[in-house]
Amino acid sequence: MHIVRGAVKTNLPIILGHEAVGVVESVGEGITSMKPGDQVIPIFLPQCGKCSTCLNPRGNLCKKDQASGLMEDGTSRFTHKGKPLHNFVGTSTFTEYTVIHEDSVVKIDAAAPPEKVCLISCGFSTGYGAAINAAKVRPGSTCAVFGLGGVGLSAVMGCKEAGASRIIGVDINKDKFPKAKEIGVTDCVNPQDYKKPINEVIFDLTGGDGVEYSFEAIGKAETMLTALNSCQINYGKCMIVGIPPTDSKITFAPGLLITGRTWKGTLFGDWKSKDTVPMLVSDFMNKKFSLDPLITHTLPFEKINEGFDLLQSGKCIRCVLTF
Amino acid sequence: MHIVRGAVKTNLPIILGHEAVGVVESVGEGITSMKPGDQVIPIFLPQCGKCSTCLNPRGNLCKKDQASGLMEDGTSRFTHKGKPLHNFVGTSTFTEYTVIHEDSVVKIDAAAPPEKVCLISCGFSTGYGAAINAAKVRPGSTCAVFGLGGVGLSAVMGCKEAGASRIIGVDINKDKFPKAKEIGVTDCVNPQDYKKPINEVIFDLTGGDGVEYSFEAIGKAETMLTALNSCQINYGKCMIVGIPPTDSKITFAPGLLITGRTWKGTLFGDWKSKDTVPMLVSDFMNKKFSLDPLITHTLPFEKINEGFDLLQSGKCIRCVLTF
Repeated sequence: MHIVRGAVKTNLPIILGHEAVGVVESVGEGITSMKPGDQVIPIFLPQCGKCSTCLNPRGNLCKKDQASGLMEDGTSRFTHKGKPLHNFVGTSTFTEYTVIHEDSVVKIDAAAPPEKVCLISCGFSTGYGAAINAAKVRPGSTCAVFGLGGVGLSAVMGCKEAGASRIIGVDINKDKFPKAKEIGVTDCVNPQDYKKPINEVIFDLTGGDGVEYSFEAIGKAETMLTALNSCQINYGKCMIVGIPPTDSKITFAPGLLITGRTWKGTLFGDWKSKDTVPMLVSDFMNKKFSLDPLITHTLPFEKINEGFDLLQSGKCIRCVLTF
Repeated sequence: MHIVRGAVKTNLPIILGHEAVGVVESVGEGITSMKPGDQVIPIFLPQCGKCSTCLNPRGNLCKKDQASGLMEDGTSRFTHKGKPLHNFVGTSTFTEYTVIHEDSVVKIDAAAPPEKVCLISCGFSTGYGAAINAAKVRPGSTCAVFGLGGVGLSAVMGCKEAGASRIIGVDINKDKFPKAKEIGVTDCVNPQDYKKPINEVIFDLTGGDGVEYSFEAIGKAETMLTALNSCQINYGKCMIVGIPPTDSKITFAPGLLITGRTWKGTLFGDWKSKDTVPMLVSDFMNKKFSLDPLITHTLPFEKINEGFDLLQSGKCIRCVLTF
């Protein structure tokens, strides 16, 4: 949807899609970490193991450049009517067969249900990791999550897992509230129900202090600033989790930061992708968390456009497409 | 200077000044933590010990409101020709005698030299604490400090104490470089020597990575953004240490944060003031750091305006005024 709306730029034509589970059909020469038949998860954030980021225990933004939409040798492995197609963030999963570099795919437990753990490929890990890994939410803390879609609800799960005692969920679609409450949101706030700015509503709800952690899981400059404004001074942390349109800008008063607040962005929950995904699948298999509440629809791949319509309508959290 | 320039608003008329050492002349009823003759340091950031911040082990922004410029009972203890004068951030030290609430002053080692440890009252603790306490600079890291005045040089000392292997100092006044190198700066950068943005110069100096920690110790919106832009993606941290003018604004692309960077502000090095100041004085007495390089001038109090002229001329780091 980001690409279709023009909010995120990429080379065209392209095969989109990045959140998936697959089975290895064949491997290239010298590949030993995976073999045909293995169940795998493709990851938009590679882990090459060789760059300065991968060699450092901290940081997860591998330096491998995927902006070209081509393989390392500068070629594309996809064609349509003889014309080459670009790949998307090294994955391209809206297709029955794709070609992925070893750096962007990892083997997972063969017993894991693909129609569920596909969410670990991006949305779940991004939100859950933002709370438990990037923000390191503390037990007993108060959190606010802006946007109760798949990423936001995963952040709610992370806050709950970390022991937050109060989780305020903010969304303009009140139909998302019952599910949010089921997952762990304690207070649902619809900005359309208030005349005052929503950060003031959050201050009212927290005895004038604001929240210790806020998460922006929408990708809008305006809510990123509201989320910062909702944090308490001293040690309030605002995490930017949503992907903003390429050309968006935020204008703010630096006094908001000088009073001790932290504003931080995170991609894929700050986790090194290939190291973490198999561990998260294992946590899922051990029932540490459930993915069921996030999967509201399942459709055959052919109905992909219906899936997007559902997503845009606000009726769907995640629509899983199957082959 | 912030007040005179109108960058920070306050009630007028007022007795300014906050970075000082004094001797208790007398105490009010029931005061037991200090007695006449004690050497003390006034602190602009109170620690009341009773508010939710003071009762929490984290955070140092005590909730005691000092904006009115009056004592807790709503009165002023200063007059000039019969007219009341406001106090400044609970301290008002540009005067031989001042009246300070117990929450804003702390007893220190009687043997400490007042003409040196006065810097612990604000500037030194702010910069040094920003590095070792707020940013928690890691051994072997690369840092950049914007503004090589008293606060910036104290941040350099903190980076060095924390074990940074490289410290890039940025200032448009090249006369500050010899002192900065003496204190620990490894690379001095004068933005006027370059046509390209200074964040690009810092990327060039760091092999294209940017620094792990940057400190803005100037108080300008423009350099706050440059400091963020100078940080590496993944785990780069930009600390805002300088006080921006009340009405300043920063406009930036949120993509700068989403790539993992942290932007955080800090006041008084994130330290709880009354708990920390005696400890820092003790560290000074144990030669953990020297304050001598920061004190370039000493003048009798009557020459205060000469001191300000020196500060504005860029020839002076700190001018200590004595009675």
